[in-house]
Amino acid sequence: METLMELAATLGPRHCLTASDDIAPYAVDWRGQWKGMPAAVLRPGTTEEVAATLRACAAAGLAVVPAGGRTGLCGGAVVPANGPPSVILSLERMNRIRDVDARDFSLVAEAGCIVQNVQQAAAAVDRLFPLSWGAQGSAMVGGALSTNAGGIRTLRWGNARDLVLGLEVVLPDGRVLNDLRRVRKDNSGYALRHLFLGGEGTLGVITAAALRLVPALKRVETAFVAVPSPEAALNLFSRVMGSGAEVIAFELIIGTCMEIMSRNAVGIRIPLPLGSPWYVMVELAAAHPSVPLREMLEDTLAAGAEAEEVLDAAIADNEAQRAMIWRIREDWPDSGRREAPCINTDTSVPVSAVPTFCARVEAVLAERWPEGRLIAIGHAGDGNIHVSLMAPTGTPYEAWSARARDAEAIVNAIAVELGGSFSAEHGIGQSKRHAMVTHKDGVALDLMRAIKAVIDPRGMMNPGKMLP
Amino acid sequence: METLMELAATLGPRHCLTASDDIAPYAVDWRGQWKGMPAAVLRPGTTEEVAATLRACAAAGLAVVPAGGRTGLCGGAVVPANGPPSVILSLERMNRIRDVDARDFSLVAEAGCIVQNVQQAAAAVDRLFPLSWGAQGSAMVGGALSTNAGGIRTLRWGNARDLVLGLEVVLPDGRVLNDLRRVRKDNSGYALRHLFLGGEGTLGVITAAALRLVPALKRVETAFVAVPSPEAALNLFSRVMGSGAEVIAFELIIGTCMEIMSRNAVGIRIPLPLGSPWYVMVELAAAHPSVPLREMLEDTLAAGAEAEEVLDAAIADNEAQRAMIWRIREDWPDSGRREAPCINTDTSVPVSAVPTFCARVEAVLAERWPEGRLIAIGHAGDGNIHVSLMAPTGTPYEAWSARARDAEAIVNAIAVELGGSFSAEHGIGQSKRHAMVTHKDGVALDLMRAIKAVIDPRGMMNPGKMLP
Repeated sequence: METLMELAATLGPRHCLTASDDIAPYAVDWRGQWKGMPAAVLRPGTTEEVAATLRACAAAGLAVVPAGGRTGLCGGAVVPANGPPSVILSLERMNRIRDVDARDFSLVAEAGCIVQNVQQAAAAVDRLFPLSWGAQGSAMVGGALSTNAGGIRTLRWGNARDLVLGLEVVLPDGRVLNDLRRVRKDNSGYALRHLFLGGEGTLGVITAAALRLVPALKRVETAFVAVPSPEAALNLFSRVMGSGAEVIAFELIIGTCMEIMSRNAVGIRIPLPLGSPWYVMVELAAAHPSVPLREMLEDTLAAGAEAEEVLDAAIADNEAQRAMIWRIREDWPDSGRREAPCINTDTSVPVSAVPTFCARVEAVLAERWPEGRLIAIGHAGDGNIHVSLMAPTGTPYEAWSARARDAEAIVNAIAVELGGSFSAEHGIGQSKRHAMVTHKDGVALDLMRAIKAVIDPRGMMNPGKMLP
Repeated sequence: METLMELAATLGPRHCLTASDDIAPYAVDWRGQWKGMPAAVLRPGTTEEVAATLRACAAAGLAVVPAGGRTGLCGGAVVPANGPPSVILSLERMNRIRDVDARDFSLVAEAGCIVQNVQQAAAAVDRLFPLSWGAQGSAMVGGALSTNAGGIRTLRWGNARDLVLGLEVVLPDGRVLNDLRRVRKDNSGYALRHLFLGGEGTLGVITAAALRLVPALKRVETAFVAVPSPEAALNLFSRVMGSGAEVIAFELIIGTCMEIMSRNAVGIRIPLPLGSPWYVMVELAAAHPSVPLREMLEDTLAAGAEAEEVLDAAIADNEAQRAMIWRIREDWPDSGRREAPCINTDTSVPVSAVPTFCARVEAVLAERWPEGRLIAIGHAGDGNIHVSLMAPTGTPYEAWSARARDAEAIVNAIAVELGGSFSAEHGIGQSKRHAMVTHKDGVALDLMRAIKAVIDPRGMMNPGKMLP
């Protein structure tokens, strides 16, 4: 194809992959759920090369699927199965940290920087880049921003969106929107960057971002807590938030998860006895070493025990114990996968509705699928509970998927009814487009389509994703 | 006019004002700089009435200028002098706080709620609504959000935009975008609300918002500090941010301001001797009473004194002294106005560029207008320095405006050259449309116009504002 030969000349032949062996890794997502073959994988190394690539693809009528670390859960970075001829535009070579400024609490990173590398570059100047989740060692900045990634610290510092000061974006026609400023305040017109943040590459390609840093943490205290119920967890959450301590994480995990993990996880030590119906992980932090964080945590947990919100608690005594608590949280997806297939969701509700949500979901799923197991694990402090319905051990994925498929729609409907979302932090991609039809406000959908039509009139950017 | 008679029937005759005495207060901004006569002032009381009003105006070809507390500085809520026939749509009657939820750290307020009333409603449940600036006793939520208001605490909690969980917006055709949810995480499509936040009413009318609350502050320490230079102020800022204390405000004020205030302000006591070239106000806070905030502040200021960043400092010993420090900050606009006319700006630069910005501005203005006085007062912690060029005492406004008009463009150009903005927190309105032509990125302007054209195709929403 002529366009690809031209692009091979522009990018260099090593960065215009067309051999099927070279393309294969890009033709499937990491969970193996989404598959689609691109015509080529293009790996531009600069913003100008991204612009040239988009111009060439536009001229040739090739659709463009932007990709980064490809750790997403919704099939957003894979060519859709029945889509138009498409290329994968991988940002992996744009991996420079262009600037770090400790006085400005800012860092400018290209889209292909691995999130963990950004964290480390910030730490090297005594600053914290707070975005953090399990896949941070592979996930890249461009994907994190395009999906408005969440994670374990959004309670304190917000989603990816909240950590962006400025963006550089290549539009579908190859023009560059240069808003890569480090300035904290700018009220000169519409906040265009928020269309691309969380836009899942359907409006353009994020090539770089000015990111916000915060003061490094000097003290952290982490507890693993057994609680009798989601209601008790909510009361404990109110207590710890009301205490005035800086709460950076508050995770809720159903007891079933811990039992499965105790069987399946390798090298995990669970710091409390099994048997509690629910567990909580709470982490407090302070940027000043003189804040009496340990006492704050102990006092709050003691008061929680007195109020029967806390059954048992273990506070990490050192960094190794703290890391172990977080390993429990992060190892869940692997432990779960080793146990049995799941129907997964990514729901959120207002924090105060978490107990009602858990109770209603449990009742409905138990009645319809008594053989299934309720999994609930999530960021309770911001209302984002991932509910899954797990198959009995030994059930093949296809069988469970056929039998329990409706569970997703049922859980989504309960979340939306309680004022929540069917797509809290993972995005829509291919996996939740059908839910957009059911649950998204019609006026919002109309506006989304109108905006898509003016920025990408020929629908070349990541077709088959997000918009139903 | 038939449409107005219909609207009088819909809204009630008391809420469709057409008598010139009734209209007069809405025909001019509070500084008397922007004037324009509407055909009527409409005061709907519900979202449905706002929708009916917009439908009726669209049918009649009447442009709509939304208005709230009308404390803006850019003429955004006034009918433009040579604009099309327009009505003022005042949100003042939509002043209900619909919901306060301490557990969710959320509050749902209608657009006509006065910002200070929202602060008080939050305080009543031991929460803080952190948005705060001089006009908060008159400014309303709808205006604060439509202009993405800043203020004295954006360093810690961001602009208005950052405090919004969900929005209710009436579109130009009367449809209602209902995104008034209190959920903290929702990645289901484009972040539409960010178009209306800071959109200055050019895309629709914000009728209500779900707002984010934070834990109430249990301790606050405030200091008034004399510093030798903006460079010293920046070093002190790095020191206090690096100390790990929670810094909620860091304001920079040129000595000239203090001298003028010592002559013109009534009932102000300045806690340090006059004569320092620059002053800083710094405020630390903690939500937990056991944080040793006073010691943190004293230690930081002592280290700053040793490093010659601090010439002298006064820490407020009680709430009265603290209030006095903030009165100095907030009284400046009045004291300044009593002194002489000014050419004002609303510039921001990256924090690290504040000293360079101040030095370059001072040199250029002093050379061109040796008779003028440099005023610089602003939120140095987020790089937002308001520079003004003040006339010699006794100069009439018109004369100074004619002679020194260019000062604005010169200061704006320096800010933009240093990676900053010519419109940091006040918005564009009518007053900075010309600067949009000069300084706004062309691609960004194209995108803004395209979005405006699809959401408000007939250009009926707040014409003559923001878009050049």
